[in-house]
Amino acid sequence: MQFHLNGFFPGDPRFADPQDRVVAPPLKRPLPEYVDVMIVGCGPAGLNLAAQLSKFADIKTCIVDYKDDRLLVGQADGIACRTMEMFQAYGFADQIAQEAYWVNETAFWKPSADNGEHIARSSKIQDVEDDLSEFPHVIINQARVHDHFLEVMRQNPAKIEPYYSRKLVSVEVDQESKDYPVTLTFERVVNNSQYMIEHEVVHAKYAVGCDGARSSVRQSIGRELVGDSINQAWGVMDVLVETDYPDIRLKSAIHSNHEGNMLIIPREGGYMVRLYIELDKLAPNERIDRNSITPEYLIKAANRIMQPYTLNVKQVAWWSVYEIGQRLTTAFDDSEEGQLPRVFLAGDACHTHSPKAGQGLNTSVNDTWNLGWKLAHVLTGRAAPELLLTYSQERQHVAQQLIDFDREFSKMFSAKPKSVTNPDGIDPAEFQRYFQQFGRFTAGTAIRYEVEVLGLDDQHQALAEGETIGMRFHSAPVVRVADAKPMQLGHCVEADARWHLFVFAGEQDLANGLADLNQLCDYLVHEPASPIVRYTRAGEDIDSIIDVRAILPCAHRDVDLTQVHSLLQPLKGKLGLRDYEKLFALSADQTKDIYTLRGIDRKDGCIIVVRPDQYVADIMPLDNLTRLQTFFDKVLL
Amino acid sequence: MQFHLNGFFPGDPRFADPQDRVVAPPLKRPLPEYVDVMIVGCGPAGLNLAAQLSKFADIKTCIVDYKDDRLLVGQADGIACRTMEMFQAYGFADQIAQEAYWVNETAFWKPSADNGEHIARSSKIQDVEDDLSEFPHVIINQARVHDHFLEVMRQNPAKIEPYYSRKLVSVEVDQESKDYPVTLTFERVVNNSQYMIEHEVVHAKYAVGCDGARSSVRQSIGRELVGDSINQAWGVMDVLVETDYPDIRLKSAIHSNHEGNMLIIPREGGYMVRLYIELDKLAPNERIDRNSITPEYLIKAANRIMQPYTLNVKQVAWWSVYEIGQRLTTAFDDSEEGQLPRVFLAGDACHTHSPKAGQGLNTSVNDTWNLGWKLAHVLTGRAAPELLLTYSQERQHVAQQLIDFDREFSKMFSAKPKSVTNPDGIDPAEFQRYFQQFGRFTAGTAIRYEVEVLGLDDQHQALAEGETIGMRFHSAPVVRVADAKPMQLGHCVEADARWHLFVFAGEQDLANGLADLNQLCDYLVHEPASPIVRYTRAGEDIDSIIDVRAILPCAHRDVDLTQVHSLLQPLKGKLGLRDYEKLFALSADQTKDIYTLRGIDRKDGCIIVVRPDQYVADIMPLDNLTRLQTFFDKVLL
Ligand SMILES: Cc1cc2nc3c(=O)[nH]c(=O)nc-3n(C[C@H](O)[C@H](O)[C@H](O)COP(=O)(O)OP(=O)(O)OC[C@H]3O[C@@H](n4cnc5c(N)ncnc54)[C@H](O)[C@@H]3O)c2cc1C
Ligand SMILES: Cc1cc2nc3c(=O)[nH]c(=O)nc-3n(C[C@H](O)[C@H](O)[C@H](O)COP(=O)(O)OP(=O)(O)OC[C@H]3O[C@@H](n4cnc5c(N)ncnc54)[C@H](O)[C@@H]3O)c2cc1C
Repeated sequence: MQFHLNGFFPGDPRFADPQDRVVAPPLKRPLPEYVDVMIVGCGPAGLNLAAQLSKFADIKTCIVDYKDDRLLVGQADGIACRTMEMFQAYGFADQIAQEAYWVNETAFWKPSADNGEHIARSSKIQDVEDDLSEFPHVIINQARVHDHFLEVMRQNPAKIEPYYSRKLVSVEVDQESKDYPVTLTFERVVNNSQYMIEHEVVHAKYAVGCDGARSSVRQSIGRELVGDSINQAWGVMDVLVETDYPDIRLKSAIHSNHEGNMLIIPREGGYMVRLYIELDKLAPNERIDRNSITPEYLIKAANRIMQPYTLNVKQVAWWSVYEIGQRLTTAFDDSEEGQLPRVFLAGDACHTHSPKAGQGLNTSVNDTWNLGWKLAHVLTGRAAPELLLTYSQERQHVAQQLIDFDREFSKMFSAKPKSVTNPDGIDPAEFQRYFQQFGRFTAGTAIRYEVEVLGLDDQHQALAEGETIGMRFHSAPVVRVADAKPMQLGHCVEADARWHLFVFAGEQDLANGLADLNQLCDYLVHEPASPIVRYTRAGEDIDSIIDVRAILPCAHRDVDLTQVHSLLQPLKGKLGLRDYEKLFALSADQTKDIYTLRGIDRKDGCIIVVRPDQYVADIMPLDNLTRLQTFFDKVLL
Repeated sequence: MQFHLNGFFPGDPRFADPQDRVVAPPLKRPLPEYVDVMIVGCGPAGLNLAAQLSKFADIKTCIVDYKDDRLLVGQADGIACRTMEMFQAYGFADQIAQEAYWVNETAFWKPSADNGEHIARSSKIQDVEDDLSEFPHVIINQARVHDHFLEVMRQNPAKIEPYYSRKLVSVEVDQESKDYPVTLTFERVVNNSQYMIEHEVVHAKYAVGCDGARSSVRQSIGRELVGDSINQAWGVMDVLVETDYPDIRLKSAIHSNHEGNMLIIPREGGYMVRLYIELDKLAPNERIDRNSITPEYLIKAANRIMQPYTLNVKQVAWWSVYEIGQRLTTAFDDSEEGQLPRVFLAGDACHTHSPKAGQGLNTSVNDTWNLGWKLAHVLTGRAAPELLLTYSQERQHVAQQLIDFDREFSKMFSAKPKSVTNPDGIDPAEFQRYFQQFGRFTAGTAIRYEVEVLGLDDQHQALAEGETIGMRFHSAPVVRVADAKPMQLGHCVEADARWHLFVFAGEQDLANGLADLNQLCDYLVHEPASPIVRYTRAGEDIDSIIDVRAILPCAHRDVDLTQVHSLLQPLKGKLGLRDYEKLFALSADQTKDIYTLRGIDRKDGCIIVVRPDQYVADIMPLDNLTRLQTFFDKVLL
């Protein structure tokens, strides 16, 4: 898709008239008095949580923002592969991929060997390694991601619309109150001015502070961002440019000898680019003098950095000075020893870092992707409130890793290039090596939750070497047997808070007429101790809470559907219709055999337990029913 | 995507609440008095034409329908690969693919050898041959296709909304009147009843009858459907079923010994299927007694045909009796010797055939896909009105082929299976062979327009063996050089009525620093005789009417963008921004080399001229500038 040719306009580029892209009158309704979950902030963290909870008609969710309408321009723009996988669970990854810029390669530029005042390309590398994810790494305006979440919220059973022009002023938790222990007070913002006319009070079971780096929720619960104070500022601008710089449509990291460093991120539509221009280092606790930074200042700096090339800026769509330190709160909730959490923090409210590795939005949405299903479980009585403790345990650890990475990465990025006159500088080749080495980390696919937090141990990891317990289930191609459709197995996991058992049959069992698989299915359907029997409620479909899918190590045409266990073709719904989408066979392309790609034990197979957020929770042999029971008994009610 | 589990509801299945899927209040505006194009009928033919014309802000298009709202259920459901390629040009092929059922395999069932009262599977075959198209053959409710066209109409510059509740009563053409020779009179239909209160008169430059098999426009211009009168009726129903028939999620052609024949078409959402049940043969000109056919009757018939399997129908979403003969009008417009056309017919208004090969919708949308850009050319002064004569010439011929095919196919489908007691019957294996042989035809990719109608001759066909002149440009994978994006070359062609030159450089030229390619580009930009110089208007972008893209026979990393001709990186738009999406290189996957896949002359390359509707208009060597000039001088003004 190409757009922005005649200038930048926000909104869905499929509309020819820019006016049609932006209309969305804010709702003038009063806030509800009682809700299950109160979300403060319509950034990516808050909207993702609302989108997840909107799946549940019987959970009352309310989301507010200080702003008077949805976001239209600016802020983050990098969507890591892992985040695309999550978008797939919501059903909008393909639309994002269609509209976004794809980061296929990254170019590295350093001072030219011939002329130190000029830059020269040192190399181009593939941005995402092969088979890291079925999705590309893409770049798109954060506002468009918001739009998709808003659409999901509107389409889902709970039909959630944000309440705009509401500013949180206080959060109080009364641990004695059982039903609605959290009280939040909001001021109504009129005409986008600071003048407030009205207070509204909302009583909630849980509150989630997705209110950004200056979070009021964080302050209310007395958590503090700890870490480096701000000592690096970046000028960031989205511009429509004409240039002779040859890599303008490739993500580029440019190190100049004397003029500083710059990142170029090509943007959606084919014409726009984002520039991140490093500003002078600040002293600790010094803030930048914002008045000294103007778009003109940034454009001049960019031109100095990229000599001998020039950048002729035709329009500035958005710009900002982005000052940020690596900071983190000690916990992502208000829990204390012996006291369960009632208020959570997510996104920039609990961690901040530089924009260079593009992790702000990605980490924020993955925070609430972790929290969402847990809140849904507890509020629908599927799990005990203790489950909520695992949110902070899992995500605080991830954020800590990110901040460690970012500290190192930023240091390397900002260092001067090594040269004869600057022997202590950094070798750009080393920077590139670091960039490559951490490719999986920045793609979001290296995230690993500690096994003990939720699961048991990794005793049976060897049964599926390529599906690491604690990491996201790594999808691979399969063919759905009933309709011979080639697809990605991981796309069975949708944003509906269900658990999944991917049962990989072994070749031996296949030769035996699937005796083991059938026995497992029998157990799952009939045994009182089976987690499906135990945790599926009367009147619910058999896959409502634990969804079983089987994969057979053969071609789809070799499967006789009449011989397949009824659990894998269950009758469902009000009408008693049969679900035919539970059984899979190998891809017709032998180089894409899921057993080989993911190191599944071909002889014996295995069960992979996948969490609602797509993470591998456990792996076990087909006959280890005790382990299966123990796992779910730990988590579900 | 799975949906319909608790019963069928029409509309976008992404909305959880069925009510949200159907609201779209009809507009109560009066019809405009003067328009450029008046389209009668909001079926697929009419909507596609409106969608195409909506791209042009300065063409005034109006579209009406007798019905009081958009279609929600029923009618056709098969989308051929070729139609998906067209949808791609509008930008919604991926969304359709996401929601639709994919026809990957077709199952053939015939009377069992053991028990003639029972059916048995004779075989399963791959439905679409490899590399026939980059898109699958899919099945989705026609109404959802309409929804996408309606969305395109809304998003495009001309912002077209249909006028519902308008019944055409007459069309008159005054050949003397220069400006608005066509006068159409409509009755306004109130409350969906037959009671009309108001007449409206619209004056149009052109009118297009997309008003279905009982077309009033056709009658008005005195064209007649000629051909077999109706002597075959089909019961068709969309049902939610529970069954033990093992291929219920595969397209199945079932021939029973004594109970007739049936087609099963699995539908979108995973639960619904469409059944086509053959009803008794009628005498010529006999119409079926509709009262004798009920859903219960059809369900019983289906159960008899598919013994020993049973079909338990839980809900009938839609049903109809579909009586159709193979009929065709002699021309698709009102032109006479020495008199140019003013009124056109498209879709069912000018050809009807059985639903078995799923060609109704596909042929109809491809009619107006052919007409759309021609009307746009004439109305914007790009081409002489004579161009409009080619519409009937090209499409009538295609429809004739379709009807010949359908006659044969229907006969074979309806014949009794060959057996000892019925030696004159048809061998199901032969039916299957016929089905396979005509796979390209039913996929829509075998359509071939006669070269002389628009182009010159096929003298240079050998330069690109796999891109047949007169057939649709067959896409293949390439890598876009500027941003290293792997993509389909054919997707450069969008529904914007532009012409495309795909210039394939030869290896020799590449070795010579692209001297030939650069010379061609110089000619195109500077020579007064160049079609780009001649037909691009002052102030228009250089690719406004003829878009040039080049493909180099090397890896994308081996291209130095600074050496590429400016025509392939042109400055465009109000701001003078550079378009980087004109240059391509080979796919990284060597098995997908476009030169090999499409038989492009690797040594010398070639130019492929592609029409706005994606058809190959001509092929020529890079230095045959005379031929290039002659071609465009024939077509453009
Ligand atoms: C101006 C700006 C520029 C940025 N630029 C970049 C960039 O260039 N690159 C990059 O990678 N990342 C950038 N980021 C960071 C990135 O956008 C964030 O990491 C990401 O948005 C975090 O998401 P979030 O949901 O946690 O918080 P946010 O997106 O910050 O959302 C917080 C929301 O809470 C609302 N809010 C705050 N306080 C209250 C209150 N008291 N009551 C009601 N509502 C409240 C805010 O209006 C806001 O909508 C930028 C952020 C900002 C704010
Ligand atoms: C009831 C029905 C069932 C069908 N079932 C199948 C099927 O099972 N399988 C299959 O492959 N194909 C089926 N078809 C055929 C398929 O839908 C058509 O081939 C396809 O829709 C043709 O598209 P069209 O745009 O040419 O005409 P249509 O889709 O028929 O559209 C014509 C439109 O014109 C409107 N119209 C008619 N007269 C007037 C007037 N005087 N004034 C204003 N508006 C008018 C009609 O209301 C209608 O909306 C069916 C068609 C119909 C009508």
